[in-house]
Amino acid sequence: MNDMRIDGGRLWGALMELAAIGATPKGGVKRLALTDLDKQGRDLVVSWGKAAGLSITVDQIGNVFMRRDGTNNDLPPVVTGSHIDTQPTGGKFDGNYGVLAGLEVVLTLNELKIKTVAPIEVAFWTNEEGSRFVPVMMGSGVFCGAFSLETAYAARDVDGKTVGEELARIGYKGEQVPGRHPIGAYFETHIEQGPVLEDADKVIGVVPAVMGLSWYDCVVSGMEAHAGPTPMGLRKDALQVSTRIMQEVVAIANRYPPYGRGTVGMVQVFPNSRNVIPGEVKFSIDLRNVNEELLNTMHEEMLDFIERTRQDSGLGITLERVSYYPPCPFHPECVDAVRSATAKLGYSTMDVVSGAGHDAIYAARLAPAGMIFVPCKDGISHNEIEDAKSEHLEAGCNVLLHAMLERAGVA
Amino acid sequence: MNDMRIDGGRLWGALMELAAIGATPKGGVKRLALTDLDKQGRDLVVSWGKAAGLSITVDQIGNVFMRRDGTNNDLPPVVTGSHIDTQPTGGKFDGNYGVLAGLEVVLTLNELKIKTVAPIEVAFWTNEEGSRFVPVMMGSGVFCGAFSLETAYAARDVDGKTVGEELARIGYKGEQVPGRHPIGAYFETHIEQGPVLEDADKVIGVVPAVMGLSWYDCVVSGMEAHAGPTPMGLRKDALQVSTRIMQEVVAIANRYPPYGRGTVGMVQVFPNSRNVIPGEVKFSIDLRNVNEELLNTMHEEMLDFIERTRQDSGLGITLERVSYYPPCPFHPECVDAVRSATAKLGYSTMDVVSGAGHDAIYAARLAPAGMIFVPCKDGISHNEIEDAKSEHLEAGCNVLLHAMLERAGVA
Repeated sequence: MNDMRIDGGRLWGALMELAAIGATPKGGVKRLALTDLDKQGRDLVVSWGKAAGLSITVDQIGNVFMRRDGTNNDLPPVVTGSHIDTQPTGGKFDGNYGVLAGLEVVLTLNELKIKTVAPIEVAFWTNEEGSRFVPVMMGSGVFCGAFSLETAYAARDVDGKTVGEELARIGYKGEQVPGRHPIGAYFETHIEQGPVLEDADKVIGVVPAVMGLSWYDCVVSGMEAHAGPTPMGLRKDALQVSTRIMQEVVAIANRYPPYGRGTVGMVQVFPNSRNVIPGEVKFSIDLRNVNEELLNTMHEEMLDFIERTRQDSGLGITLERVSYYPPCPFHPECVDAVRSATAKLGYSTMDVVSGAGHDAIYAARLAPAGMIFVPCKDGISHNEIEDAKSEHLEAGCNVLLHAMLERAGVA
Repeated sequence: MNDMRIDGGRLWGALMELAAIGATPKGGVKRLALTDLDKQGRDLVVSWGKAAGLSITVDQIGNVFMRRDGTNNDLPPVVTGSHIDTQPTGGKFDGNYGVLAGLEVVLTLNELKIKTVAPIEVAFWTNEEGSRFVPVMMGSGVFCGAFSLETAYAARDVDGKTVGEELARIGYKGEQVPGRHPIGAYFETHIEQGPVLEDADKVIGVVPAVMGLSWYDCVVSGMEAHAGPTPMGLRKDALQVSTRIMQEVVAIANRYPPYGRGTVGMVQVFPNSRNVIPGEVKFSIDLRNVNEELLNTMHEEMLDFIERTRQDSGLGITLERVSYYPPCPFHPECVDAVRSATAKLGYSTMDVVSGAGHDAIYAARLAPAGMIFVPCKDGISHNEIEDAKSEHLEAGCNVLLHAMLERAGVA
């Protein structure tokens, strides 16, 4: 049992074949949710599942479950999966790796004629990326009841097409009621989408939790004026006041290592003219932490700083929270299953808290869940140059195999 | 002589009549250089000049000189003027006031039947604003030889039309070679375009000089990365490094009061996405001072700071100087003429260094020059809500009258 390994070359081949659908000139993939290309990708993966003897269930939001029976089918299945939709300028591995690693586990078990006690399933969730339709993580979100099927169906892309219409059009509006599908445990393998593993030269990231995040829009309102005739003391420079807040965002994150994160990613300056003192600046703030209490502390410190800055500067400052996800700790049994599988296989490893969202967050609301990270080149994802090493993908898939076997039991 | 006054109501009426050409719904004016509306405005002002008995000369760049003979026409004329083109969302007073104040001086002298020794001229210069065609201050710039007539003619608007074509089309491509028009002295009245006079509650600004300015484009290059998974210590956040420089721009200006100015007016963040650490930030820097040595010091301090920031941060930083105008001190005799006229008339006054560019800068290269400022509401200009009080405009015009008479001499 312990010397069981997946076929890394076969996994790589499947990844490259799927990546050919929607391939971009720069080596990435553009396969937006519920497009014709998504249908092609789904059809290919389903055909592979059928060829592997799996039975297919599609639910009403288009989540696909591909099942390999166990010896006791009354037990809820051990599920693994991710998504196959991509960003507009996405890579070959984000999501796709998690789905095809699951299929590779099945192929390996088939070859070795190993039956599990509990059934095993490979799932792919609809519209994880949220690039064409919001909200993100739509399929898993509907599945766990984070929002309703009707909300998801009504979401429109920029051309006004709805999720409901597009699901039906590509033939993936299934019968099963989302969530009416038992899950015994859930694992998701994924490229890290960050630089931590590569920087530490480790192969496997055991993921104890996903960070919570708090998103804000901040607007600083001053008075636009001519850059020449307006003395420094008579200015209401919205950008200068904004830069203080932008620096504090980073300072707050640095006060809560190692998992504090603070980012200003988006800035709009009005009127944005070389010789005009900015009258208004709008910018985003992104605060994250894996500890909810610390995330709340960071939130409070941000509010305090903005209040002080409002008083000091005399300028108008508004801060609106536009999104909040609490931290999501994974289930100790699933985390341990990943950790012990990694130890058994002898891979170098470390704990890596996920800073990005994944379908596993929603799956974790319904069943014990865990994640397995592998390095990606320079930590780059959501980019056509996203890259990962075949041996790392193979290692992650081997960890998945052994973790799933531990949870499902070998007959 | 000393009790001579212009007619403030007539001046206001002329300003409002000219402002009706290209009037905007918000109470401003849009009369871009060399458009049909500019032709209408020019024709109106020229018709007023002819009605006042002035002789008209148009030079090859479309500058218009309207002359009232003196008793000794061998003397070079005492010229006053400004421009009548506006910004796309311009006001009623910027430029227009300087031209119509000159006409009002002529009308007053006509009524009082006063002859000057030297001739008097009212000029309006082509395309001061630079909104449709660059460079700015085009007519006065060609006149003084700052750049060639050919360069100006070849300038194109966004539709590809050239200055040469448009000048001919509206009938203002004259015969006189630019610069072949002697000037004995030049005065320009203008709204301050800043808040200093209003803040100090003074009516007349005596303008000893125009600030020099140094413009830069700064580009900070880091590495874009996902805002969640990237630990603070592994980031190359181009925006955070940029905010340090943006704050230093203001700090440098504050170290050189009262005439140091530092402004970041334009910012572009790439990729400008909420959950992506900025990989590149491009922003403008505008440094000004009335003292060239101090402006150079400010420049050097900026270079030093950027070099230190480059070393501290490890990020790429480039700084390119894109424009430089040295400070322009006005001629002591013209400044004194304004100062003594103001004193004689009993207006409250202070010295106000001009932070903005004016045609007077180029005129000052050829002849003694001086400027007269009057307050504008909230210091706002280049805006449809630009406003000024009739009594202030009247006061400035009275100062112009007496300063010109001092230079031209009363026969």
